[in-house]
Amino acid sequence: MKFEVIQKSGGSRARLGRLLTPHGVVETPCFMPVGTSATVKAIFPKDLEEEGIKLILANAYHLLFRPGISVIKEFGGLHQFMGWNGAILTDSGGFQVFSLSPFCKIFPEGVRFKSPVDGSFLMLTPESAIHAQMELGSDIVMSLDHCPPWPSKEKDLLEATRRTIQWAKRGKETWMQQQEKLFSKPSASYSLFGIIQGGTDERLRLYCSEELMKIGFDGYAIGGLSVGEPHEESLAVVKTVSSFLDEKAPKYVMGMGQPWQIVQMVDLGIDLFDCVLPTRLARHGSAYVEEGIIHIKNARFRKDGSPLDSRCSCYACRKFSRGYIHHLLKSKEILGIMLLSMHNLLFYNRLMKEIRSFLAHGQWVDFLARWKDKKVTK
Amino acid sequence: MKFEVIQKSGGSRARLGRLLTPHGVVETPCFMPVGTSATVKAIFPKDLEEEGIKLILANAYHLLFRPGISVIKEFGGLHQFMGWNGAILTDSGGFQVFSLSPFCKIFPEGVRFKSPVDGSFLMLTPESAIHAQMELGSDIVMSLDHCPPWPSKEKDLLEATRRTIQWAKRGKETWMQQQEKLFSKPSASYSLFGIIQGGTDERLRLYCSEELMKIGFDGYAIGGLSVGEPHEESLAVVKTVSSFLDEKAPKYVMGMGQPWQIVQMVDLGIDLFDCVLPTRLARHGSAYVEEGIIHIKNARFRKDGSPLDSRCSCYACRKFSRGYIHHLLKSKEILGIMLLSMHNLLFYNRLMKEIRSFLAHGQWVDFLARWKDKKVTK
Repeated sequence: MKFEVIQKSGGSRARLGRLLTPHGVVETPCFMPVGTSATVKAIFPKDLEEEGIKLILANAYHLLFRPGISVIKEFGGLHQFMGWNGAILTDSGGFQVFSLSPFCKIFPEGVRFKSPVDGSFLMLTPESAIHAQMELGSDIVMSLDHCPPWPSKEKDLLEATRRTIQWAKRGKETWMQQQEKLFSKPSASYSLFGIIQGGTDERLRLYCSEELMKIGFDGYAIGGLSVGEPHEESLAVVKTVSSFLDEKAPKYVMGMGQPWQIVQMVDLGIDLFDCVLPTRLARHGSAYVEEGIIHIKNARFRKDGSPLDSRCSCYACRKFSRGYIHHLLKSKEILGIMLLSMHNLLFYNRLMKEIRSFLAHGQWVDFLARWKDKKVTK
Repeated sequence: MKFEVIQKSGGSRARLGRLLTPHGVVETPCFMPVGTSATVKAIFPKDLEEEGIKLILANAYHLLFRPGISVIKEFGGLHQFMGWNGAILTDSGGFQVFSLSPFCKIFPEGVRFKSPVDGSFLMLTPESAIHAQMELGSDIVMSLDHCPPWPSKEKDLLEATRRTIQWAKRGKETWMQQQEKLFSKPSASYSLFGIIQGGTDERLRLYCSEELMKIGFDGYAIGGLSVGEPHEESLAVVKTVSSFLDEKAPKYVMGMGQPWQIVQMVDLGIDLFDCVLPTRLARHGSAYVEEGIIHIKNARFRKDGSPLDSRCSCYACRKFSRGYIHHLLKSKEILGIMLLSMHNLLFYNRLMKEIRSFLAHGQWVDFLARWKDKKVTK
């Protein structure tokens, strides 16, 4: 068993779990810091490890162009290349191809798009997406999906969903062949996850979920959310899909994750999360704190001698004041971004630790009530 | 005694020393990482401390405008503000006023210049320079100097030198009054250094040295070098001045310091150094290695699996390859700058450790010979 539910919460779908990977055991619910281009931006891997972060996300899409999958393979794989000893989940590139790539065109074999780095044309297929991620040495591989924009016409949504299912099937076949070749049986620790599409159409989402479960994956991801749709609609999709999915498999909502959204989704039974916000907001000078998000560049922090978050025990909060970080940001000093990135990632990490601790003590309902009372800044 | 010569090298002026500061003992010869705006760029103070770095430099000039001396004072001083537990030497601002400030004009009381931050006019006097640095809580305070450009007319050079001497005298008086006020006697650990000017005119340099020694300082700095003059001329100045200065006081050459220059100046009896190069070159993608300086963005490092410097045991060299750092720089990732900054600073730190170790074992001449044999990239 690669995934194990340790404890369920009464009166909620929230659960505590354990996910086995070739690079260690990951406790769930878990938030994955985003390391798009083989680096979680502006933080040393050792500082992530010190804080007990076990699993990060990287994007096969970005690594395709730079430095190239074959280069990383020559370096002994992504873990070795980026000096990361923990586990890595790689996204297949489906989302990025459809949202970031110019001149993207779909063919029966896959999707063709232009490299934003050198302008050359590349083809990503359900098969090549699996091969690429396996060459990276990814602990958790994602199947290639067709992520439609929001809003989309019903016809387009249906087509993208059908394609996602076909691609999932082809990806799974490739995965099985490769597992056979490498281990002469399915790996006991590497995982392949399927991605569920269907926009905000719950019927399509259920159809996709059902088909993906027939194919059979180690875990299921809900993709194509947080692309512009109202939060209530994304949450409705998560609720519907999560309650339909196999309870024995880990469930992952992709790319969505303000702290309060994560709390809501844990309550709906989601185990894995990723989001660029903690590091992106850091680069824009914002910090997550107990009350929400504060913009440290604001003049009111100039003489503020208190730490970013008085509840926080991260290095940035132990040793530095809001006023100092304000000064660094005003002076365009990299250290300002470094400190905010560290704090924001550890804010998320602490949130997940708290969530797991409340779940472990059978007090999820109390935790949830506490969060609902809070005034949370979106 | 704030400074003690522990061991002299036979056949050279090189010496091993110990400098007492309110924030610990500093072994000399010592290189100070530059922390201009209250941050050594792109590195956590904890990572400097872990590597045994005891003394850094900050610039009172930059802190005058941003965040302002009074703001730092409110935070409990510069050490507290920037989370640095080691010692700090602050430059007075003389060099920056004359080299960086627009609309700089000299008056009998001091020098007036325009703030590059908000365009307001500020006045820096020999007295206010001392006050400002003492308010910062600087361990080693520098007197205000008039740093002339290179080349300068003889008349201008003489005038700048005379002014530097007058200002040094006024600064010393302020220092003594403040010491009296604060400690009711001269401090046993805070230091005031005088700065010797005189361009490349050795006669003027000696005149300035003599006058400054009459005033009496805890240490003597050679300023106004590395401003465009040929390296041989700077070295000649260092040689002349160093052999003339009081052997019992620490000697500091300001702002000059490629590794091979430092080795040469240690040989001439210099104890303290600072230079922006290790951090600046890091931001430009260059690394100090055994053979000189390498430009990691260069395509030849794309698939290079070796560490930046195989002799180095810093985190960047222990965990990452040139190829990975090449990738980070190409992807404009902050982590690339962080790793290079760490490596370059530790390269300097290791050089200084080696220098001290050879001095301690009475093997300076061997060390020097080894360096002279090396092909060093400027």
